[in-house]
Amino acid sequence: MPHSLRDLENPGEFIPRHIGVDAADEAHMLSVIGEASRQALIEGIVPRAIARSREMNLPPAVGEAAALAELRRIASRNQVMRSFIGQGYYGTTTPPVILRNVLENPAWYTAYTPYQAEISQGRMEALVNFQTLVCDLTGMAIANASMLDEATSAAEAMTLARRSVKARSNTFVVAGDCHPQTIEVVRTRARPLGIEVVLANSAEEWQRLLAGDYFAVLAQYPATSGRIDDLRADVVQVHAKQAAFIVAADLLALTLLVPPGEWGADIVVGTTQRFGMPMGAGGPHAAYMACRDEYKRSLPGRLVGVSVDAHGNPAYRLALQTREQHIRREKATSNICTAQVLPAVVASMYAVYHGPDGLRRIAQRVACYTALLARGLEQLGHRPRSPNFFDTVSLHTGKSTQTLLAKGHSLGANLRVAWDEYLCISLDETTTRADIELLWSVFAAPGQELPRIADFEQGLEPAIAPALRRTSGFLAHPVFNTHHSETGMLRYIRSLSDKDLALDRTMIPLGSCTMKLNATSEMIPITWPEFANVHPFAPADQLAGYAELDAQLRAWLCEATGYAGISLQPNAGSQGEYAGLLAIKAWHESRGEGQRNICLIPSSAHGTNPASAQMVGMQVVVTACDEGGNVDLADLEAKCRQHGDKLAAVMITYPSTHGVFETRVKELCELVHRHGGRVYIDGANMNALVGVAAPGEFGGDVSHLNLHKTFCIPHGGGGPGVGPVCVVEDLVPFLPGHATGGAGASPVGAVSAAPLGNAAVLPISWMYCRMMGAQGLRQATEVAILSANYVSVRLREHYPTLYASPNGHVAHECILDLRPLKDSSGVTAEDVAKRLIDYGFHAPTLSFPVPGTLMVEPTESETLDELERFIAAMIAIRQEIQRIETGEWPREDNPLKHAPHTAASLLRSDWQHAYPREVGAAVLDERRHAKYWPPVGRVDNAWGDRNLFCSCVPTGAYE
Amino acid sequence: MPHSLRDLENPGEFIPRHIGVDAADEAHMLSVIGEASRQALIEGIVPRAIARSREMNLPPAVGEAAALAELRRIASRNQVMRSFIGQGYYGTTTPPVILRNVLENPAWYTAYTPYQAEISQGRMEALVNFQTLVCDLTGMAIANASMLDEATSAAEAMTLARRSVKARSNTFVVAGDCHPQTIEVVRTRARPLGIEVVLANSAEEWQRLLAGDYFAVLAQYPATSGRIDDLRADVVQVHAKQAAFIVAADLLALTLLVPPGEWGADIVVGTTQRFGMPMGAGGPHAAYMACRDEYKRSLPGRLVGVSVDAHGNPAYRLALQTREQHIRREKATSNICTAQVLPAVVASMYAVYHGPDGLRRIAQRVACYTALLARGLEQLGHRPRSPNFFDTVSLHTGKSTQTLLAKGHSLGANLRVAWDEYLCISLDETTTRADIELLWSVFAAPGQELPRIADFEQGLEPAIAPALRRTSGFLAHPVFNTHHSETGMLRYIRSLSDKDLALDRTMIPLGSCTMKLNATSEMIPITWPEFANVHPFAPADQLAGYAELDAQLRAWLCEATGYAGISLQPNAGSQGEYAGLLAIKAWHESRGEGQRNICLIPSSAHGTNPASAQMVGMQVVVTACDEGGNVDLADLEAKCRQHGDKLAAVMITYPSTHGVFETRVKELCELVHRHGGRVYIDGANMNALVGVAAPGEFGGDVSHLNLHKTFCIPHGGGGPGVGPVCVVEDLVPFLPGHATGGAGASPVGAVSAAPLGNAAVLPISWMYCRMMGAQGLRQATEVAILSANYVSVRLREHYPTLYASPNGHVAHECILDLRPLKDSSGVTAEDVAKRLIDYGFHAPTLSFPVPGTLMVEPTESETLDELERFIAAMIAIRQEIQRIETGEWPREDNPLKHAPHTAASLLRSDWQHAYPREVGAAVLDERRHAKYWPPVGRVDNAWGDRNLFCSCVPTGAYE
Repeated sequence: MPHSLRDLENPGEFIPRHIGVDAADEAHMLSVIGEASRQALIEGIVPRAIARSREMNLPPAVGEAAALAELRRIASRNQVMRSFIGQGYYGTTTPPVILRNVLENPAWYTAYTPYQAEISQGRMEALVNFQTLVCDLTGMAIANASMLDEATSAAEAMTLARRSVKARSNTFVVAGDCHPQTIEVVRTRARPLGIEVVLANSAEEWQRLLAGDYFAVLAQYPATSGRIDDLRADVVQVHAKQAAFIVAADLLALTLLVPPGEWGADIVVGTTQRFGMPMGAGGPHAAYMACRDEYKRSLPGRLVGVSVDAHGNPAYRLALQTREQHIRREKATSNICTAQVLPAVVASMYAVYHGPDGLRRIAQRVACYTALLARGLEQLGHRPRSPNFFDTVSLHTGKSTQTLLAKGHSLGANLRVAWDEYLCISLDETTTRADIELLWSVFAAPGQELPRIADFEQGLEPAIAPALRRTSGFLAHPVFNTHHSETGMLRYIRSLSDKDLALDRTMIPLGSCTMKLNATSEMIPITWPEFANVHPFAPADQLAGYAELDAQLRAWLCEATGYAGISLQPNAGSQGEYAGLLAIKAWHESRGEGQRNICLIPSSAHGTNPASAQMVGMQVVVTACDEGGNVDLADLEAKCRQHGDKLAAVMITYPSTHGVFETRVKELCELVHRHGGRVYIDGANMNALVGVAAPGEFGGDVSHLNLHKTFCIPHGGGGPGVGPVCVVEDLVPFLPGHATGGAGASPVGAVSAAPLGNAAVLPISWMYCRMMGAQGLRQATEVAILSANYVSVRLREHYPTLYASPNGHVAHECILDLRPLKDSSGVTAEDVAKRLIDYGFHAPTLSFPVPGTLMVEPTESETLDELERFIAAMIAIRQEIQRIETGEWPREDNPLKHAPHTAASLLRSDWQHAYPREVGAAVLDERRHAKYWPPVGRVDNAWGDRNLFCSCVPTGAYE
Repeated sequence: MPHSLRDLENPGEFIPRHIGVDAADEAHMLSVIGEASRQALIEGIVPRAIARSREMNLPPAVGEAAALAELRRIASRNQVMRSFIGQGYYGTTTPPVILRNVLENPAWYTAYTPYQAEISQGRMEALVNFQTLVCDLTGMAIANASMLDEATSAAEAMTLARRSVKARSNTFVVAGDCHPQTIEVVRTRARPLGIEVVLANSAEEWQRLLAGDYFAVLAQYPATSGRIDDLRADVVQVHAKQAAFIVAADLLALTLLVPPGEWGADIVVGTTQRFGMPMGAGGPHAAYMACRDEYKRSLPGRLVGVSVDAHGNPAYRLALQTREQHIRREKATSNICTAQVLPAVVASMYAVYHGPDGLRRIAQRVACYTALLARGLEQLGHRPRSPNFFDTVSLHTGKSTQTLLAKGHSLGANLRVAWDEYLCISLDETTTRADIELLWSVFAAPGQELPRIADFEQGLEPAIAPALRRTSGFLAHPVFNTHHSETGMLRYIRSLSDKDLALDRTMIPLGSCTMKLNATSEMIPITWPEFANVHPFAPADQLAGYAELDAQLRAWLCEATGYAGISLQPNAGSQGEYAGLLAIKAWHESRGEGQRNICLIPSSAHGTNPASAQMVGMQVVVTACDEGGNVDLADLEAKCRQHGDKLAAVMITYPSTHGVFETRVKELCELVHRHGGRVYIDGANMNALVGVAAPGEFGGDVSHLNLHKTFCIPHGGGGPGVGPVCVVEDLVPFLPGHATGGAGASPVGAVSAAPLGNAAVLPISWMYCRMMGAQGLRQATEVAILSANYVSVRLREHYPTLYASPNGHVAHECILDLRPLKDSSGVTAEDVAKRLIDYGFHAPTLSFPVPGTLMVEPTESETLDELERFIAAMIAIRQEIQRIETGEWPREDNPLKHAPHTAASLLRSDWQHAYPREVGAAVLDERRHAKYWPPVGRVDNAWGDRNLFCSCVPTGAYE
């Protein structure tokens, strides 16, 4: 039979690779739901008033090979030069065994945040290694499991200090020799909170300011110019004021320098980028924060701690979760949700692989090369400004600055201009002898003889003053001193990942988290050198590929959302949310309505919403929901009226966090606008909207997206994320800027350390959009909705869905109501979540947004087969519950209460439970789905919080 | 303290990554062995007479990043053009999910050949999929689990036919329109066996020859020129002669063509390269062989079949192993040991991913594009020679041939010249519209208007005659119709690999197999486009990078072995061995001593040795070993004398297969030389020699190496291998040539389809040598010997080592004697091997070379930790045996007899064994080493051979 070439070419080939449900599955599912077609289903669910007016205008889908080829061409517009810019971003070598088996391995990158402790022991061990690494190198008592970037970490340290110290002042003193991007983000964060940032532009000014009033100070160690100051006396002075001393420190340098913890610092922040994560034009990298023990319960971000499981064995879990915004809501002081888990794992593995001796050797090489560079430069007549430095020398180059810079570029080397008349040169792990010779040649006058490396070969020393040299050891724990062969390292990596459940083994039906496919072809480009090995502050012409990627992706996301402008700078959803509220605030101010500071938030909202509102200095007022879970419009209107010209914004999530398309959302938006407020629509549930309805069209003024949900950036075990902020036309001028990164100033300033935030993962979303096209994206949305409704209907008689639209349908997720089971059987939603582990599943979202429920979001990527497997497990569990209800099994001794079951517990000869072992093991279909064995039994959270311990477990503890 | 730059630069950084034992471990191990230093140990083991005269002259070691950079420069000398050469090698797209999760995943590439069935169920399922794929597409009854390349597969088919058919003739008729490299290898193989290969250079000659005498014929379908003939009448004619009809067929074409099995072919061979394996300058790819049911017990190579386990469940294992040379020895008819498992897994996964509809669509696109190309070419005045074709058109270009070829090159396109006056153009899965336009432009005369694709857009049909179009279905099994979403595919891949034990989870202490580290940095280059995407028959200037790699690697291997010349063409150890014997034979013939055809082989030899000798037409005479396991020199001398001027060669392995450095090897060589014979030293145990002793120095004339043992090419689950053949000066002219591939003729001909054999994996060995340098390589050898001696000493009182040198030492492996346990407890070596699975280990080599023993080779890459874990398991098992000896456990009901234990069997409520379940589970240290659960119980080999079934298991079978 004759063929159409187009059919054979199959440009939409990726769409059925992404969407797990095929046409036959779909017909079956629709018949179960009782709908005639997918179109009919969607029309019955998405309110007519908000349906898109037209299909998205995106380039037509192309296949994987074609998309990769197109992106290659874009990538090739980036120029990979030798970077000597430094300023927080350095060349680094990702050990190949870590590159392939962590960064490029779906067992690591598709994992979720470790809320379900029992199936997350592997990555939590890696994170405890990370925390230990940070504590050991900084000399501090406790460190969290990563921050978004060094600049936001410094800003968070500022607010941590403010709420922790006794000093009563609004002044925050910042050394001028901090990284400029850090200063820029700190300023952004300080402004809405009424904190005054005072910059010390000279040593004298620093001393003068230290004598004044402030609640905290921030210094960089070594300074951005490379200088290393002895800050011991300053700390004493600051402490005398009952203020906090915050240090931004370079971890590699700390292997050679007396760590801040040994000279009294209160909080230490920084980045671990140079521990194996490529520069990637600015991210993702794991930043860190460490502090003294007294501050531990105020520490923002995630913290992994050690507790015990039901059998009394050590087990990891997230510690002190009560600090987090999903518990504290409007009392939260930080809105951080996502961390940088994958980069933190890489950094921790880098330390495990090199160990203390290896790290020290790398640092010594960098320091000695820098000393060598300096001696050669002196020979050429250029004396570095400071006699003490680790990896960076600054030269006063005056009027020749631009000439030398250009000469460097012509030779393939990027230098850094600082304070107009200085050039800074930073070396790193990747520096070679040839690089040093190249740098000398940049500074040699015509005809001037170059220094010879051979003359300095022996007897080089780091240019670090004796008093500043570190004498204390670090990383003495066996984990950092064992896995130094590649075989050993490989097995360690595998043994950890085998403990965890990620998308490569099972669906992760987490409501509100959208755990969909992260396709390999989407992941491949992020480690291309053209994307991975460029510096965020390289000259713009060297980043032309990123600029094109940024422009295209923003255009496509504008199409998807209906907004007029977008910034990709926020490197997590929380940051996008923050930037969005900043835009609203700045817009009000620009109109002379700075008094508008009331933010209305329905009671069903994500906890980050009130937290973000707090952070921009808005006052949160909670509005009611009706019994159907919908925003109570009457109450909202009353509150709008009540607050009058103080109304700044309303924040809603759409579809709602209850998994329902509220029909009156358009009215709601009009109502808010009538009262002079702006509507913030949280994009957490965008996976139910793309191609179907656009928040920018139906009344939203601002949204943030989570590219790590809807647009396929993998969760990475809890980060990186990307949280673009999208706004309507009149808010475009109030999107974040980036003066340091050359992206221009903005009234709101920069929200991330790098102008493009987590730039290196943006190719993932680009690939997704490019391979799906408008039709594919819409189909994904529709199938996501179809699958959620299918699960809801199939489970209806076992677990009723709590909220639905009037016709009984849900959006892309459904809340299963387990609350009645508590009375009938004593079983809680948590018991069911843990029992699902025995059946090999990651639990759905537990007790959010409604306590005692499970929220299921299957996403479009799951196959019908996998949905059925999940449904079968849920039904089997319901039958187990019935055996408790009938009294066959005691309320306290049944497979749910003892879930999850370890192999060791099931094999004990003295098994004495009311149910047989086979039932405990809960194998549904072993041949098709290998049994997952949890490495620990149920973890005791309270014990761990009472006995807080957040470093590597001493070897003896397991005996 | 001041530093030496060299120390800080640490160019030998990779050495301790490769070698698992560090200085402290080494000191401990030496003290246990009772030696003062590693040097003393080695001097006591390696006979003084053979110790190297000087250190190897290799470039000094460089680190991973530097080695990768250097190899990048070499790779960049290859030019990646658009290839339209065809001739058995085609562009293909490796689906990214398969690329990353199979080809680049250590769980797949570090696995061993699936001799231990219970820990190999995953890759055997993939291989059964492969066999099913081949059977379904060819229409044949049975297919094996891959062959080395299409050409050797055709040669093996020739000998299979010869021993299977009734026709008594020495003539093998080959259609001239077969791939030339196939004809070349068939000729090489035929010559020593006295088979006359007759080529049919025209249709008339073919018909004339078919009317004559022959035992088999070979035709290509479609032909190398692209033509598709209807061979049905020919088959009838051949069968009337009781001869066999062999077809070399293209699997992708067979999705559209009536398969050979439907028109009576007896054996079908071919390659699966275009099912997702890059061209890689010729390999590795999985070739295939399928045959009619009657031939199945004569089929060469590995065959995976379905049997049952101890619990009656279906389980895979290698079928009909009694055919293999390690059982049949001198009766063996094929010496194939290694297959191409990893490429076969890729091909099978490609079929699983695309399914029958996807494959058909790809084939139809290729065929329609080719039809489109042809119509455009006709419009330009170039009419293809044949009206029927799939992917290849041939054009008579006469005197313009070279001009057009050059024009193609200038436009970036490689065409193929055939029979001097023809150009052939082959399209493939990667062909685009732009390619077709480019090809038209090559053939357009200046000013001639180009055809327009739009004119042909609709109604294209493959140019296949109706009678040849396939109507039968294929790949109906669910496995090919289920995993079509990427999520589904990813989980299927992971679920299979999780069933298996590979080096990423445990040591694989297989004596004689050298399962050492396959470092990631060694693996990274093989998928670089410059190595992966070049055609083996591209013009030499486009393969300059490979030429440089080849030259450097050969020079380094000459240094390591002491030989004068090397060929990297043999794509498995067996092929190197074969090529080595061919060289000896041809050398004798060149001196007029063609009568020399006796090959002496000690009784301890590898089974491949006698098999290879058979294949070159030599007569095998077995010589004795003494009770110490050494070659009995007196017997050898007697046999040399006895055979006088018929003595051709002696084949030995050194150190011996008994794991001992025989002290009199130099004498042995001199003895053989005195009698006019040549000495073949099997390089299987080269890991005990590199840097320490060189066979080419101490008397060997020929050796083959196994780069997949000593030089770090991963085993891939049973291939690919590389088996370079190394010879002394006077044998250099008798190394393999490759007329087709432009590598020049040789008296012995070509032994592989491609001039560089498995070219694409050679970068692995290059990287290894480059990063280790002479010192590192020697240290690796020494530590391999140290570790074997350590294990031997530590286990001495539990399991005595069978053979040792006079001072009690072993070489790099030790044979543990378990024979006495049979009497004392009824426990066999196999029981211990299976029990080790419960402890999480892959068993050592079982019953080779001595029945009832286990041969342990730890290699230098294992850490002391892992050695101790293995030792602990072995001791624990010995203690279990003791409990049988003392009568505590019955001889037939103990953890050894029931090993390995599945989780399901241990969890049964009706557990009724004499030992508790926890003992059955055999967990040593669960926290540090996650328990491996075998997916099946002990597999019944005999049942499977009685009930031979080698395709996908029908779904019902598991119920």
